[in-house]
Amino acid sequence: MLRKKTKGQLIVLSGPSGVGKSTVISELLSQREGIHFSISFTTRQPRVGEADGVNYFFVTRETFEGMIANDELLEYAEYVNNYYGTSLKHIQEKLDAGIDVLLDIEVQGAAKVRAKCPDAVFIFIVPPSFEELSRRLHRRATDQEEVIQGRLRKAREEYREIPNYDYLVVNDKVSDAAAEIVAILTAENCRTKNRMNLVEGV
Amino acid sequence: MLRKKTKGQLIVLSGPSGVGKSTVISELLSQREGIHFSISFTTRQPRVGEADGVNYFFVTRETFEGMIANDELLEYAEYVNNYYGTSLKHIQEKLDAGIDVLLDIEVQGAAKVRAKCPDAVFIFIVPPSFEELSRRLHRRATDQEEVIQGRLRKAREEYREIPNYDYLVVNDKVSDAAAEIVAILTAENCRTKNRMNLVEGV
Repeated sequence: MLRKKTKGQLIVLSGPSGVGKSTVISELLSQREGIHFSISFTTRQPRVGEADGVNYFFVTRETFEGMIANDELLEYAEYVNNYYGTSLKHIQEKLDAGIDVLLDIEVQGAAKVRAKCPDAVFIFIVPPSFEELSRRLHRRATDQEEVIQGRLRKAREEYREIPNYDYLVVNDKVSDAAAEIVAILTAENCRTKNRMNLVEGV
Repeated sequence: MLRKKTKGQLIVLSGPSGVGKSTVISELLSQREGIHFSISFTTRQPRVGEADGVNYFFVTRETFEGMIANDELLEYAEYVNNYYGTSLKHIQEKLDAGIDVLLDIEVQGAAKVRAKCPDAVFIFIVPPSFEELSRRLHRRATDQEEVIQGRLRKAREEYREIPNYDYLVVNDKVSDAAAEIVAILTAENCRTKNRMNLVEGV
């Protein structure tokens, strides 16, 4: 297993609502085997069609606050009286087993991960243009105009965080965006610091 | 041309004699279009089968020393009374035109390029093992045992420079090694610092 590095890579993906991140992630997971997509913990109730361990791990408030107290979360946030967070233990187990772990989190959560895991790879996905982002948000037709305008304002705020990301991927065509992320992961595996174990006698 | 970055990327490839670098480079150039392979200048006489502008640019000692005096070389060295060097102007023209430029140079030349062009990408190619490197050098059957042993000693010296390289590629299978370099180039194109021009309103 010459090319196997010892530890998995932590990959953090962020991008504005409507950019098509979940579609890119599905395509990415189909293009490249062996990536573990991290599922968040939440205290909110499952919506219709959502399953425990698929969309989220659904836990009680007591359980979640126990995880906070025991420092078991890589990052967490509270929205509308519900907690959302990422289990450090789950991720660490995968990384220790040499498996790459993908996190889909927004910019504040990503900033917390960056502080704790500076070796993680941070990728920001943008649409080809704001006009196109607006078109995509309207096309979904699930939100009212006011909500869409709010999402576009939030996108502009999130864009200010882009310089803190290592890589920028434009989601023009989903398969191209996924292929670029695959290339980024391959390149990160080739980083000298991740491969010195392959060099004899140095 | 949304995904086009403004400037080309300078790529420096090093690796020990016998690792199969020129085969990997041929495969790389066939896998990925738009890379300019930089041809060195030399004052040595062309060998049988070598052509000016293909293997080297063959110039007189006076011309070469003029290039040194005019600071026209990115790096140069003198071996056995002959100069070898890389024209800065040739490279700069390509990079300015948005074309990636590949240099095949040894570790000392690479160190000089690193000092002048910190944004270049430095890739070191290793064989799967020293045993395999020895096998490859013997298989070429062009050198005497003493020369081969000298090359293996030199390889061990060159290996000490590996930590200064950004990426480490193992040439086990040529097509895999070339594909990894293609992925590295794609990833480097995705670096946030090379793509901020694609982001509106930041």
